[in-house]
Amino acid sequence: MPKKRPSNKDFDNEEVFPQLSLDCVIFGFNDGTLKVLLLKWKGTEYWSLPGGLIRQSEDIDNAAIRILQERTGLGQIFLRQFHTFGKIERYDNQKIISKLSHVIDPESWYDRAISIGYYALVDYAEVFPNPDQFTDECQWWILEEVPELLFDHNEILKKALHSLRLELSYQPVGYNLLSEKFTMPEMMRMYEAILGSKIDPRNFQKKILNSGIVIKLNEVKKGLAHKSPNLYMFDKVKYQQILEGGGLFII
Amino acid sequence: MPKKRPSNKDFDNEEVFPQLSLDCVIFGFNDGTLKVLLLKWKGTEYWSLPGGLIRQSEDIDNAAIRILQERTGLGQIFLRQFHTFGKIERYDNQKIISKLSHVIDPESWYDRAISIGYYALVDYAEVFPNPDQFTDECQWWILEEVPELLFDHNEILKKALHSLRLELSYQPVGYNLLSEKFTMPEMMRMYEAILGSKIDPRNFQKKILNSGIVIKLNEVKKGLAHKSPNLYMFDKVKYQQILEGGGLFII
Repeated sequence: MPKKRPSNKDFDNEEVFPQLSLDCVIFGFNDGTLKVLLLKWKGTEYWSLPGGLIRQSEDIDNAAIRILQERTGLGQIFLRQFHTFGKIERYDNQKIISKLSHVIDPESWYDRAISIGYYALVDYAEVFPNPDQFTDECQWWILEEVPELLFDHNEILKKALHSLRLELSYQPVGYNLLSEKFTMPEMMRMYEAILGSKIDPRNFQKKILNSGIVIKLNEVKKGLAHKSPNLYMFDKVKYQQILEGGGLFII
Repeated sequence: MPKKRPSNKDFDNEEVFPQLSLDCVIFGFNDGTLKVLLLKWKGTEYWSLPGGLIRQSEDIDNAAIRILQERTGLGQIFLRQFHTFGKIERYDNQKIISKLSHVIDPESWYDRAISIGYYALVDYAEVFPNPDQFTDECQWWILEEVPELLFDHNEILKKALHSLRLELSYQPVGYNLLSEKFTMPEMMRMYEAILGSKIDPRNFQKKILNSGIVIKLNEVKKGLAHKSPNLYMFDKVKYQQILEGGGLFII
Protein backbone atom coordinates (compact mmCIF):
# COMPACT_ATOMS: atom_id res chain seq x y z
CA MET A 1 0.00 0.00 0.00
CA PRO A 2 1.36 3.43 -0.78
CA LYS A 3 2.07 5.50 2.28
CA LYS A 4 -0.75 7.82 3.23
CA ARG A 5 0.06 11.39 2.33
CA PRO A 6 -0.46 14.44 4.55
CA SER A 7 -3.51 16.50 3.79
CA ASN A 8 -1.39 19.53 2.91
CA LYS A 9 -3.31 21.71 5.35
CA ASP A 10 -1.85 23.41 8.38
CA PHE A 11 -3.43 23.80 11.81
CA ASP A 12 -5.54 26.74 10.70
CA ASN A 13 -6.77 24.46 7.89
CA GLU A 14 -4.96 26.52 5.27
CA GLU A 15 -3.58 24.78 2.18
CA VAL A 16 0.21 24.58 2.31
CA PHE A 17 3.11 23.67 0.01
CA PRO A 18 3.94 19.95 0.15
CA GLN A 19 7.46 18.83 1.12
CA LEU A 20 8.51 22.38 1.93
CA SER A 21 9.07 24.11 5.25
CA LEU A 22 10.56 27.24 6.67
CA ASP A 23 12.96 27.48 9.61
CA CYS A 24 13.70 30.66 11.54
CA VAL A 25 16.86 31.47 13.44
CA ILE A 26 15.87 34.29 15.79
CA PHE A 27 18.92 36.01 17.24
CA GLY A 28 18.32 38.24 20.24
CA PHE A 29 20.63 41.04 21.23
CA ASN A 30 20.51 42.82 24.55
CA ASP A 31 23.05 44.40 26.81
CA GLY A 32 26.11 43.11 25.00
CA THR A 33 24.98 39.48 24.53
CA LEU A 34 23.76 37.47 21.55
CA LYS A 35 21.24 34.65 22.13
CA VAL A 36 19.01 32.39 20.02
CA LEU A 37 15.35 31.45 20.51
CA LEU A 38 14.60 27.69 20.78
CA LEU A 39 11.50 25.55 21.32
CA LYS A 40 11.23 22.46 23.55
CA TRP A 41 8.99 19.71 22.14
CA LYS A 42 6.07 18.54 24.29
CA GLY A 43 6.90 15.81 26.77
CA THR A 44 10.55 15.66 25.71
CA GLU A 45 13.91 17.24 26.46
CA TYR A 46 14.47 17.90 22.73
CA TRP A 47 14.89 21.40 21.34
CA SER A 48 14.56 22.83 17.83
CA LEU A 49 14.43 26.11 15.96
CA PRO A 50 11.00 27.69 15.39
CA GLY A 51 9.53 26.92 11.98
CA GLY A 52 6.40 26.16 10.02
CA LEU A 53 4.75 25.53 6.69
CA ILE A 54 4.19 27.89 3.76
CA ARG A 55 0.61 28.61 2.81
CA GLN A 56 -0.50 28.65 -0.83
CA SER A 57 -1.99 32.05 -0.10
CA GLU A 58 1.16 33.82 1.13
CA ASP A 59 4.56 34.99 -0.15
CA ILE A 60 7.39 33.04 1.48
CA ASP A 61 8.68 36.26 3.10
CA ASN A 62 5.23 36.74 4.64
CA ALA A 63 5.26 33.16 5.93
CA ALA A 64 8.51 33.98 7.74
CA ILE A 65 7.02 37.20 9.16
CA ARG A 66 3.91 35.30 10.34
CA ILE A 67 5.97 32.59 12.07
CA LEU A 68 8.24 35.15 13.73
CA GLN A 69 5.29 37.15 14.94
CA GLU A 70 3.63 34.02 16.36
CA ARG A 71 6.80 33.13 18.30
CA THR A 72 8.00 36.59 19.40
CA GLY A 73 5.01 38.95 19.29
CA LEU A 74 7.12 41.35 17.21
CA GLY A 75 5.99 42.87 13.93
CA GLN A 76 8.68 45.03 12.36
CA ILE A 77 11.92 43.10 12.54
CA PHE A 78 15.22 42.74 10.73
CA LEU A 79 14.64 39.56 8.70
CA ARG A 80 16.72 37.88 5.99
CA GLN A 81 16.33 34.78 3.87
CA PHE A 82 19.81 33.23 3.96
CA HIS A 83 19.81 29.68 2.52
CA THR A 84 17.60 26.82 1.36
CA PHE A 85 18.46 23.40 2.76
CA GLY A 86 17.81 20.52 0.39
CA LYS A 87 20.09 17.55 0.91
CA ILE A 88 18.44 14.14 0.51
CA GLU A 89 19.44 13.08 4.01
CA ARG A 90 19.06 16.30 5.96
CA TYR A 91 18.44 14.18 9.06
CA ASP A 92 17.57 10.66 10.11
CA ASN A 93 13.82 10.36 9.58
CA GLN A 94 13.43 7.20 11.67
CA LYS A 95 15.20 8.81 14.62
CA ILE A 96 12.95 11.87 14.45
CA ILE A 97 9.80 9.74 14.23
CA SER A 98 10.89 7.64 17.20
CA LYS A 99 11.52 10.75 19.28
CA LEU A 100 8.40 12.69 18.30
CA SER A 101 5.74 10.11 17.38
CA HIS A 102 3.64 11.15 20.41
CA VAL A 103 3.39 14.69 18.98
CA ILE A 104 3.38 14.28 15.21
CA ASP A 105 1.58 11.62 13.18
CA PRO A 106 4.28 9.46 11.51
CA GLU A 107 1.82 8.81 8.67
CA SER A 108 1.76 12.51 7.86
CA TRP A 109 5.54 12.74 7.70
CA TYR A 110 7.18 13.18 4.30
CA ASP A 111 10.29 11.12 3.59
CA ARG A 112 11.93 14.30 2.47
CA ALA A 113 11.38 18.05 2.81
CA ILE A 114 13.26 21.12 1.68
CA SER A 115 13.53 23.99 4.14
CA ILE A 116 13.98 27.70 3.47
CA GLY A 117 16.06 29.37 6.19
CA TYR A 118 15.46 32.89 7.51
CA TYR A 119 17.24 34.69 10.29
CA ALA A 120 16.07 37.62 12.36
CA LEU A 121 17.87 39.96 14.72
CA VAL A 122 15.70 41.40 17.50
CA ASP A 123 16.02 43.22 20.79
CA TYR A 124 15.21 40.37 23.12
CA ALA A 125 14.03 42.64 25.89
CA GLU A 126 10.98 43.28 23.68
CA VAL A 127 10.13 39.67 22.89
CA PHE A 128 7.38 37.59 24.51
CA PRO A 129 8.48 34.02 23.63
CA ASN A 130 5.54 31.82 22.71
CA PRO A 131 5.62 28.06 22.00
CA ASP A 132 3.65 26.49 19.10
CA GLN A 133 1.25 23.52 19.03
CA PHE A 134 4.08 20.95 19.15
CA THR A 135 6.09 22.53 21.95
CA ASP A 136 5.64 23.65 25.51
CA GLU A 137 8.62 25.95 26.05
CA CYS A 138 10.11 28.80 24.05
CA GLN A 139 13.36 30.12 25.51
CA TRP A 140 16.47 32.14 24.81
CA TRP A 141 19.74 30.21 24.78
CA ILE A 142 23.26 31.63 24.94
CA LEU A 143 24.90 30.68 21.62
CA GLU A 144 27.77 28.75 23.20
CA GLU A 145 25.33 26.67 25.30
CA VAL A 146 22.95 25.54 22.53
CA PRO A 147 22.37 21.75 22.91
CA GLU A 148 22.14 19.13 20.17
CA LEU A 149 19.01 20.14 18.26
CA LEU A 150 16.41 18.07 16.41
CA PHE A 151 16.52 17.70 12.61
CA ASP A 152 19.52 19.47 11.00
CA HIS A 153 18.94 22.57 13.09
CA ASN A 154 22.49 22.87 14.49
CA GLU A 155 23.71 23.12 10.90
CA ILE A 156 21.01 25.68 10.02
CA LEU A 157 21.95 27.75 13.08
CA LYS A 158 25.65 27.63 12.15
CA LYS A 159 24.94 28.77 8.60
CA ALA A 160 22.65 31.57 9.83
CA LEU A 161 25.32 32.88 12.19
CA HIS A 162 27.85 32.81 9.39
CA SER A 163 25.47 34.74 7.11
CA LEU A 164 24.71 37.32 9.79
CA ARG A 165 28.43 37.88 10.40
CA LEU A 166 29.08 38.25 6.70
CA GLU A 167 26.16 40.66 6.38
CA LEU A 168 27.60 42.71 9.21
CA SER A 169 30.69 43.31 7.08
CA TYR A 170 28.80 44.96 4.24
CA GLN A 171 25.46 46.21 5.59
CA PRO A 172 24.56 48.44 8.51
CA VAL A 173 23.03 46.65 11.51
CA GLY A 174 21.90 48.02 14.83
CA TYR A 175 18.88 50.18 14.22
CA ASN A 176 16.25 49.01 16.79
CA LEU A 177 18.95 47.16 18.74
CA LEU A 178 20.78 50.16 20.21
CA SER A 179 19.10 53.04 22.06
CA GLU A 180 18.25 56.07 19.94
CA LYS A 181 21.46 57.71 21.18
CA PHE A 182 24.48 55.52 21.80
CA THR A 183 28.23 55.70 22.40
CA MET A 184 30.88 54.25 20.10
CA PRO A 185 31.85 51.59 22.72
CA GLU A 186 28.18 50.51 22.92
CA MET A 187 28.00 50.14 19.15
CA MET A 188 31.29 48.27 19.12
CA ARG A 189 30.07 45.87 21.82
CA MET A 190 27.09 45.03 19.59
CA TYR A 191 29.46 44.18 16.71
CA GLU A 192 31.66 42.14 19.04
CA ALA A 193 28.67 40.21 20.41
CA ILE A 194 27.55 39.27 16.89
CA LEU A 195 31.04 38.51 15.56
CA GLY A 196 32.02 36.61 18.69
CA SER A 197 35.43 38.26 18.69
CA LYS A 198 37.23 41.44 19.72
CA ILE A 199 37.51 44.45 17.41
CA ASP A 200 40.23 47.09 17.21
CA PRO A 201 38.44 50.21 18.62
CA ARG A 202 40.31 52.86 16.61
CA ASN A 203 39.86 51.10 13.29
CA PHE A 204 36.19 50.45 14.09
CA GLN A 205 35.43 54.08 14.92
CA LYS A 206 37.21 55.30 11.78
CA LYS A 207 35.31 52.91 9.50
CA ILE A 208 31.92 53.63 11.05
CA LEU A 209 32.47 57.39 10.79
CA ASN A 210 33.72 57.09 7.19
CA SER A 211 30.62 55.08 6.25
CA GLY A 212 28.41 58.04 7.14
CA ILE A 213 25.72 55.91 8.87
CA VAL A 214 26.10 57.69 12.23
CA ILE A 215 25.90 61.36 13.21
CA LYS A 216 28.05 62.66 16.06
CA LEU A 217 25.91 64.63 18.52
CA ASN A 218 26.93 67.61 20.63
CA GLU A 219 26.17 65.54 23.71
CA VAL A 220 28.10 63.22 25.99
CA LYS A 221 26.88 60.26 28.01
CA LYS A 222 26.88 61.18 31.71
CA GLY A 223 26.86 59.11 34.84
CA LEU A 224 29.87 56.99 33.97
CA ALA A 225 32.68 56.84 36.52
CA HIS A 226 35.71 58.19 34.72
CA LYS A 227 34.76 59.57 31.34
CA SER A 228 31.94 61.14 29.38
CA PRO A 229 31.95 59.50 25.92
CA ASN A 230 30.33 61.21 22.95
CA LEU A 231 26.85 60.22 21.87
CA TYR A 232 25.90 59.28 18.30
CA MET A 233 22.71 58.46 16.44
CA PHE A 234 21.99 56.72 13.15
CA ASP A 235 21.63 58.82 10.00
CA LYS A 236 18.47 57.02 8.95
CA VAL A 237 18.51 58.32 5.36
CA LYS A 238 22.09 57.18 4.75
CA TYR A 239 21.46 53.91 6.65
CA GLN A 240 18.45 53.17 4.45
CA GLN A 241 20.32 54.13 1.27
CA ILE A 242 23.07 51.63 2.02
CA LEU A 243 20.55 48.91 2.93
CA GLU A 244 18.60 49.42 -0.29
CA GLY A 245 21.68 49.94 -2.43
CA GLY A 246 22.59 46.50 -1.22
CA GLY A 247 25.87 46.99 0.43
CA LEU A 248 29.47 47.66 -0.27
CA PHE A 249 29.59 49.32 3.10
CA ILE A 250 32.73 47.59 4.25
CA ILE A 251 33.54 47.40 7.93
CA MET B 1 -13.99 19.61 -11.74
CA PRO B 2 -10.72 20.06 -9.95
CA LYS B 3 -7.86 21.00 -12.24
CA LYS B 4 -5.79 18.06 -13.35
CA ARG B 5 -2.47 17.93 -11.57
CA PRO B 6 0.92 17.28 -13.17
CA SER B 7 2.28 13.77 -12.82
CA ASN B 8 5.29 15.00 -10.82
CA LYS B 9 7.67 13.22 -13.15
CA ASP B 10 10.27 14.87 -15.32
CA PHE B 11 11.23 13.97 -18.88
CA ASP B 12 13.46 11.13 -17.76
CA ASN B 13 10.41 9.85 -15.84
CA GLU B 14 12.01 10.64 -12.50
CA GLU B 15 9.80 11.69 -9.58
CA VAL B 16 10.24 15.39 -8.83
CA PHE B 17 9.24 17.88 -6.14
CA PRO B 18 5.84 19.45 -6.82
CA GLN B 19 5.54 23.25 -7.10
CA LEU B 20 9.29 23.71 -6.91
CA SER B 21 11.84 24.55 -9.58
CA LEU B 22 15.42 25.64 -9.93
CA ASP B 23 16.71 28.49 -12.08
CA CYS B 24 20.35 28.93 -13.08
CA VAL B 25 22.06 32.17 -13.95
CA ILE B 26 25.19 31.13 -15.84
CA PHE B 27 27.66 33.99 -16.14
CA GLY B 28 30.41 33.55 -18.66
CA PHE B 29 33.70 35.40 -18.48
CA ASN B 30 36.20 35.57 -21.29
CA ASP B 31 38.66 38.14 -22.52
CA GLY B 32 37.44 40.96 -20.32
CA THR B 33 33.68 40.56 -20.88
CA LEU B 34 30.83 39.19 -18.75
CA LYS B 35 27.88 37.48 -20.48
CA VAL B 36 24.88 35.38 -19.48
CA LEU B 37 23.53 32.16 -21.03
CA LEU B 38 19.89 32.26 -22.22
CA LEU B 39 17.49 29.84 -23.92
CA LYS B 40 15.03 30.66 -26.71
CA TRP B 41 11.72 28.78 -26.49
CA LYS B 42 10.67 26.65 -29.46
CA GLY B 43 8.79 28.50 -32.18
CA THR B 44 8.94 31.83 -30.30
CA GLU B 45 11.14 34.88 -29.89
CA TYR B 46 10.96 34.52 -26.08
CA TRP B 47 14.04 33.93 -23.95
CA SER B 48 14.50 32.62 -20.41
CA LEU B 49 17.17 31.45 -18.01
CA PRO B 50 18.03 27.74 -17.99
CA GLY B 51 16.24 25.78 -15.27
CA GLY B 52 14.55 22.56 -14.32
CA LEU B 53 12.89 20.41 -11.69
CA ILE B 54 14.35 18.81 -8.58
CA ARG B 55 14.27 15.02 -8.39
CA GLN B 56 13.25 13.24 -5.22
CA SER B 57 16.47 11.26 -5.57
CA GLU B 58 18.93 14.16 -5.62
CA ASP B 59 20.27 16.94 -3.34
CA ILE B 60 19.22 20.37 -4.60
CA ASP B 61 22.90 21.26 -5.17
CA ASN B 62 23.21 18.20 -7.37
CA ALA B 63 20.09 19.19 -9.30
CA ALA B 64 21.81 22.51 -10.06
CA ILE B 65 25.02 20.73 -11.10
CA ARG B 66 23.02 18.37 -13.36
CA ILE B 67 21.15 21.24 -15.06
CA LEU B 68 24.35 23.24 -15.55
CA GLN B 69 26.12 20.23 -17.01
CA GLU B 70 23.23 19.57 -19.39
CA ARG B 71 23.33 23.18 -20.65
CA THR B 72 27.09 23.83 -20.71
CA GLY B 73 28.88 20.47 -20.84
CA LEU B 74 30.99 21.58 -17.88
CA GLY B 75 31.47 19.53 -14.73
CA GLN B 76 33.56 21.33 -12.14
CA ILE B 77 32.27 24.88 -11.90
CA PHE B 78 31.96 27.76 -9.47
CA LEU B 79 28.33 27.44 -8.33
CA ARG B 80 26.37 29.24 -5.62
CA GLN B 81 22.82 29.07 -4.32
CA PHE B 82 21.88 32.73 -3.87
CA HIS B 83 18.13 33.17 -3.24
CA THR B 84 14.77 31.38 -3.25
CA PHE B 85 11.97 33.18 -5.07
CA GLY B 86 8.54 32.67 -3.56
CA LYS B 87 6.17 35.56 -4.11
CA ILE B 88 2.55 34.59 -4.82
CA GLU B 89 2.55 36.46 -8.10
CA ARG B 90 6.05 35.85 -9.38
CA TYR B 91 4.69 36.33 -12.90
CA ASP B 92 1.42 36.42 -14.82
CA ASN B 93 0.43 32.77 -15.31
CA GLN B 94 -2.14 33.48 -18.01
CA LYS B 95 0.39 35.44 -20.04
CA ILE B 96 2.93 32.61 -19.82
CA ILE B 97 0.36 30.00 -20.80
CA SER B 98 -0.78 32.06 -23.79
CA LYS B 99 2.82 32.45 -24.96
CA LEU B 100 3.97 28.86 -24.41
CA SER B 101 0.86 26.65 -24.69
CA HIS B 102 2.29 25.05 -27.86
CA VAL B 103 5.30 23.81 -25.85
CA ILE B 104 3.97 23.12 -22.35
CA ASP B 105 0.66 21.53 -21.42
CA PRO B 106 -1.42 24.21 -19.64
CA GLU B 107 -3.09 21.41 -17.64
CA SER B 108 0.23 20.44 -16.15
CA TRP B 109 0.98 23.98 -15.03
CA TYR B 110 0.83 24.76 -11.31
CA ASP B 111 -0.84 28.02 -10.30
CA ARG B 112 2.19 28.75 -8.22
CA ALA B 113 5.78 27.51 -7.93
CA ILE B 114 8.74 28.45 -5.78
CA SER B 115 12.13 28.63 -7.46
CA ILE B 116 15.58 28.16 -5.97
CA GLY B 117 18.16 30.37 -7.69
CA TYR B 118 21.76 29.34 -8.39
CA TYR B 119 24.44 31.24 -10.22
CA ALA B 120 27.58 29.95 -11.87
CA LEU B 121 30.66 31.67 -13.20
CA VAL B 122 32.39 29.86 -16.06
CA ASP B 123 34.99 30.46 -18.75
CA TYR B 124 32.70 30.72 -21.71
CA ALA B 125 35.37 29.68 -24.18
CA GLU B 126 34.99 26.19 -22.68
CA VAL B 127 31.20 25.97 -22.87
CA PHE B 128 29.18 24.09 -25.50
CA PRO B 129 25.71 25.67 -25.12
CA ASN B 130 22.95 23.11 -25.40
CA PRO B 131 19.17 23.85 -25.46
CA ASP B 132 16.68 21.69 -23.51
CA GLN B 133 13.46 19.97 -24.63
CA PHE B 134 11.45 23.23 -24.57
CA THR B 135 13.93 25.41 -26.41
CA ASP B 136 15.81 25.47 -29.70
CA GLU B 137 18.58 27.95 -29.02
CA CYS B 138 21.07 28.41 -26.18
CA GLN B 139 23.16 31.53 -26.50
CA TRP B 140 25.41 33.96 -24.67
CA TRP B 141 24.07 37.50 -24.25
CA ILE B 142 25.99 40.60 -23.27
CA LEU B 143 24.51 41.69 -19.93
CA GLU B 144 23.48 45.15 -21.12
CA GLU B 145 21.62 43.67 -24.10
CA VAL B 146 19.52 41.05 -22.29
CA PRO B 147 15.90 41.36 -23.57
CA GLU B 148 12.67 41.10 -21.55
CA LEU B 149 12.72 37.51 -20.29
CA LEU B 150 9.88 35.07 -19.57
CA PHE B 151 8.60 34.48 -16.01
CA ASP B 152 10.40 36.69 -13.40
CA HIS B 153 13.78 35.91 -14.91
CA ASN B 154 14.93 39.53 -15.31
CA GLU B 155 14.48 39.92 -11.56
CA ILE B 156 16.31 36.64 -10.87
CA LEU B 157 19.18 37.75 -13.13
CA LYS B 158 19.41 41.11 -11.36
CA LYS B 159 19.52 39.48 -7.94
CA ALA B 160 22.16 36.97 -9.10
CA LEU B 161 24.39 39.74 -10.43
CA HIS B 162 24.03 41.62 -7.16
CA SER B 163 24.95 38.48 -5.18
CA LEU B 164 27.96 37.76 -7.40
CA ARG B 165 29.23 41.34 -6.97
CA LEU B 166 28.77 41.13 -3.22
CA GLU B 167 30.56 37.80 -3.12
CA LEU B 168 33.43 39.33 -5.07
CA SER B 169 33.95 41.72 -2.17
CA TYR B 170 34.57 39.01 0.43
CA GLN B 171 35.57 35.83 -1.42
CA PRO B 172 38.29 35.10 -3.95
CA VAL B 173 37.07 34.60 -7.54
CA GLY B 174 39.02 33.91 -10.68
CA TYR B 175 40.48 30.47 -10.38
CA ASN B 176 39.60 28.68 -13.69
CA LEU B 177 38.71 32.04 -15.28
CA LEU B 178 42.22 33.47 -15.62
CA SER B 179 45.17 31.63 -17.19
CA GLU B 180 47.45 29.78 -14.77
CA LYS B 181 49.81 32.76 -14.85
CA PHE B 182 48.32 36.21 -15.18
CA THR B 183 49.21 39.89 -14.80
CA MET B 184 47.67 42.27 -12.28
CA PRO B 185 45.92 44.26 -15.07
CA GLU B 186 44.35 41.01 -16.34
CA MET B 187 43.04 40.17 -12.88
CA MET B 188 41.75 43.70 -12.45
CA ARG B 189 39.93 43.56 -15.79
CA MET B 190 38.12 40.44 -14.54
CA TYR B 191 36.97 42.31 -11.42
CA GLU B 192 35.91 45.30 -13.51
CA ALA B 193 33.93 43.10 -15.93
CA ILE B 194 32.01 41.52 -13.06
CA LEU B 195 31.50 44.75 -11.11
CA GLY B 196 30.58 46.70 -14.23
CA SER B 197 32.70 49.64 -13.06
CA LYS B 198 36.26 50.92 -12.97
CA ILE B 199 38.62 50.10 -10.10
CA ASP B 200 41.54 52.14 -8.73
CA PRO B 201 44.58 50.05 -9.86
CA ARG B 202 46.92 50.92 -6.97
CA ASN B 203 44.38 50.17 -4.29
CA PHE B 204 43.38 46.96 -6.05
CA GLN B 205 46.93 45.65 -6.29
CA LYS B 206 47.61 46.49 -2.64
CA LYS B 207 44.50 44.69 -1.41
CA ILE B 208 45.04 41.59 -3.55
CA LEU B 209 48.66 41.31 -2.40
CA ASN B 210 47.69 41.84 1.25
CA SER B 211 45.05 39.11 1.01
CA GLY B 212 47.75 36.55 0.21
CA ILE B 213 45.74 34.77 -2.50
CA VAL B 214 48.32 35.42 -5.23
CA ILE B 215 52.03 34.68 -5.48
CA LYS B 216 54.30 37.03 -7.41
CA LEU B 217 56.46 35.07 -9.85
CA ASN B 218 59.97 35.86 -11.00
CA GLU B 219 58.64 36.15 -14.53
CA VAL B 220 57.25 38.90 -16.71
CA LYS B 221 54.75 38.74 -19.52
CA LYS B 222 56.50 39.28 -22.82
CA GLY B 223 55.34 40.28 -26.25
CA LEU B 224 53.54 43.44 -25.14
CA ALA B 225 54.45 46.66 -26.95
CA HIS B 226 55.79 48.95 -24.24
CA LYS B 227 56.13 47.09 -20.94
CA SER B 228 56.68 43.67 -19.43
CA PRO B 229 54.30 43.36 -16.49
CA ASN B 230 54.95 40.87 -13.71
CA LEU B 231 53.20 37.53 -13.71
CA TYR B 232 51.27 36.10 -10.73
CA MET B 233 49.55 32.85 -9.91
CA PHE B 234 46.98 31.88 -7.30
CA ASP B 235 48.15 30.47 -3.97
CA LYS B 236 45.67 27.59 -4.09
CA VAL B 237 46.05 26.67 -0.44
CA LYS B 238 45.36 30.22 0.78
CA TYR B 239 42.62 30.65 -1.83
CA GLN B 240 40.89 27.48 -0.63
CA GLN B 241 41.31 28.44 3.04
CA ILE B 242 39.52 31.73 2.49
CA LEU B 243 36.76 30.06 0.47
CA GLU B 244 36.17 27.45 3.14
CA GLY B 245 36.58 29.84 6.03
CA GLY B 246 33.70 31.69 4.43
CA GLY B 247 35.14 35.01 3.69
CA LEU B 248 36.15 38.19 5.38
CA PHE B 249 38.57 38.61 2.54
CA ILE B 250 37.69 42.23 1.89
CA ILE B 251 38.53 43.76 -1.43
